[in-house]
Parts: sequence; C-alpha cells; structure tokens
Amino acid sequence: MLQALIFDVFGTVVDWRTGVAREVGAAFGGRVDALAFADAWRGRYQPAMERIRSGNRGYVPLDILHRENLDATLEEFGLESALDEAGRAALNRAWEKLPPWQDSVPGLTALKARYAIAPCSNGSIALMTWLAKFGALPWDVILGAEIAQDYKPQPAVYVASAAALGLQPAEVMMVAAHNSDLVAARGAGLQTGFFPRPTEHGPGQTSDLEPLQDWDVVAEDLQDLANRLLM
Amino acid sequence: MLQALIFDVFGTVVDWRTGVAREVGAAFGGRVDALAFADAWRGRYQPAMERIRSGNRGYVPLDILHRENLDATLEEFGLESALDEAGRAALNRAWEKLPPWQDSVPGLTALKARYAIAPCSNGSIALMTWLAKFGALPWDVILGAEIAQDYKPQPAVYVASAAALGLQPAEVMMVAAHNSDLVAARGAGLQTGFFPRPTEHGPGQTSDLEPLQDWDVVAEDLQDLANRLLM
Repeated sequence: MLQALIFDVFGTVVDWRTGVAREVGAAFGGRVDALAFADAWRGRYQPAMERIRSGNRGYVPLDILHRENLDATLEEFGLESALDEAGRAALNRAWEKLPPWQDSVPGLTALKARYAIAPCSNGSIALMTWLAKFGALPWDVILGAEIAQDYKPQPAVYVASAAALGLQPAEVMMVAAHNSDLVAARGAGLQTGFFPRPTEHGPGQTSDLEPLQDWDVVAEDLQDLANRLLM
Repeated sequence: MLQALIFDVFGTVVDWRTGVAREVGAAFGGRVDALAFADAWRGRYQPAMERIRSGNRGYVPLDILHRENLDATLEEFGLESALDEAGRAALNRAWEKLPPWQDSVPGLTALKARYAIAPCSNGSIALMTWLAKFGALPWDVILGAEIAQDYKPQPAVYVASAAALGLQPAEVMMVAAHNSDLVAARGAGLQTGFFPRPTEHGPGQTSDLEPLQDWDVVAEDLQDLANRLLM
C-alpha cells in the first residue's frame, strides 16, 4: 500500500530557470542575459554529478558542485572579475530561492494529509531545507542524494530514501516531470507519478512534454496528481 | 546569528511515558502494569546505545534497539508468549505514537516562522517522521542520530546536524529538557535552550527539574521558549 510520495524538485516542484535568472539579474543588472546564464549554469549540472555517479569523485553536496559550476560559468561569460568571493557565495544561494509552480504548495499540502511527502532531489539537505522555507513547501522530511551519498538516477538514491522511512520501494511513489527519473525509480521498484512542466526550459521546450511509459499515475500537474490519488 | 533550533524529542517535545504505556495497555489490557513496563523498556535505552557510542557495535537505527529492548522487557515481565512476531513489530511502533506536550506544537509553529526547526533525537529518520505525522509536529527537516550515524551525547551528532543545514554550530541552538544533552551540545559549540518537563518520568521525578548551568535561554516550556526568542 502506498505510504509515501517522494518528489523530484528542480523543474517538478519549483521553477529553477526563472528563479536563478532573477538572482543573476539582481547580481549583474543588464550586463548579462540572465536566462542564458541560468541555462549555462544548469547545463554543467549533469556532467558534474556524472563524475560522482561513475566513482571518479567521492560524494560532495550539490552546493559545492553548483559553486564550481558558477565559477566556470562566470568565466564562460567573461565575468570572472565581476563578483568577489562573498558575491559568488551569495549568488550560489540562488538555488535556495526558486519559486514553486503555482499548483505545488496546494498539491503537496493535500497529499500530506494522507501520505508522508519528501523531496528526493539531487539537492543537499541544507539546500532543500532552505528552499522549502523560501517557498513554504510542507515536506515531512528531507530525503534524496545526501541520504544516499550518491546522485540520481543511481538506484541507491531511491532505495535509500524509501529505507529511511522504514518502507519497501513498492510502498513509495517517485513523482517527477522527467521521464528519465521515473525510468530509474521504476527500475528500483518504486511506484511512479508523472506530470509535465512544459515551460521548465522556457517557451521552446521539446523534452518531457508527454509520459514515455505507462507510469502508475499520469496527471496534469501536482494538484491534479493529488486529486487523482486522494479520490 | 541564530538560524536554526534543533530539539531533543523524547521527553522534551513528546510525553513518551504516557504514550508508550497507552500502547502497552492496549496490547495487554489489565495483565501488566503499563507504566512499569514503559519505564523498564525505556530503562534499556541508554545501555543499548552505549554499546554503539563506545564503538563495540556499528550504528543501527533506534527502531532496532527498541525492538531488542522490547523482547528483553517482555521476558523480564514473563510475557514471552503473549505476543507473536507481528504483535511485537506493532507494539514497537508505540514510539511513533507519542503525544506532544500541550505547548509543543504551538511553540514549534511560532519558532518555524523565523528559524529552521528540526529534531536532534536519537530516534531514526523513520521514527521521527512518523512521530511527527502522528502529533503534527511541524519540522522543516529531520536531523539527529541517523544523519551522524552515532548517538547523543556524542559531539558528532550535534555537529553533523548543524552541518547538514550548512551552518556553524554557533548558529544553532540545541533545545532539551535534559541538562546532560545541553552539556554535550555546548561542548560541541552550539547555543543551548532549556525548559523542564517535571512529569516526564511521572509524579515522583527528581531529575532535570532545574537548569544546572547558565544555558543561553531558560524557559518555562516550549511556548515560553518561543516567546523569549521571538520577543
């Protein structure tokens, strides 16, 4: 029986692109294309985690990868001298200030009445905690990469998140707007829930507009997922 | 500057003795002195953790220690044959059904508006999550023993809980109704908050009725602690 729902966060629960671009714009004003900077910063996300997933680097929290990627992105944009150490540390916290999609808080609040709800993100415990406080995300507990000391889509992250609740994988549903996340979660024995976030990557998005497998629940958005599960 | 408050839970936030006795009474009816059984079960708590703190046993979550201690307590009370495996597993979850003290939820809710709040208990992530859902404890995140893979009062538990929030120990206050917990937290560099729970151990309680050091905040109860910090 389903006991808990665990969620991808960046893209699924919060709008990282708009949020990061807003902080980039606040730091640099008109000197930089803030959305392009956000995309470039995020573009370094998967390669940085891949070194850890492949065993070429020990686990470090995502905050450290974000900071290394920020330094590289500043260089890419010719902005090495635009931000000192304190400015870089402050901008790195942009990832703690991402707006929830409009339906996220009502949907999570409804689900929380029946299930345990938690992020299963590649973000660290600290990042997820401060992000939740920024956006009033009503998590019961913070699970995910730091609990498992590895990064999604490694199966250990999903399995460790279920185990941390004393649950079997089949008692937990992974919810994501990304098909690849659900492929991995299903492979690890979890239930799966999908809805699209068609503007996560901006107006020209072509990926993850539709479910690519027969996920256990397919919904319009997080509120609709709650409606379907709580029927 | 203070950013987060982390709390002892058994005794400080919830009334373990009444809660466990209620579940013991439900399991055995009038055949057992439920409060005596609860005290005996809890009496095996520190020795069980001490084996792990001293390095004589690797870390296992408190749920496993509680279960081993339940088996021993059943034997002590001559109740070995009174509960089968499923009954023992169910009774072991008594620790997830402990009533919060009357002031706990209002006090935590008030503090949550300004600070990150988390348990820093010897209970596992699972135990603390289900206990929070039972009692509507509004934690932002679950920290404590399982994060550190060791048991209080080992300094690592307090330090790891602060670090999991990206904070220095001095930015975090440990709150407990037990002076010994605060001695260890202060030794690890945390701020300290105390209030008594004069009936935690029943009407005859003689320990922890007063602060034994000049803790940073001394209050009447959790609501009063919130009032003092939010003044």
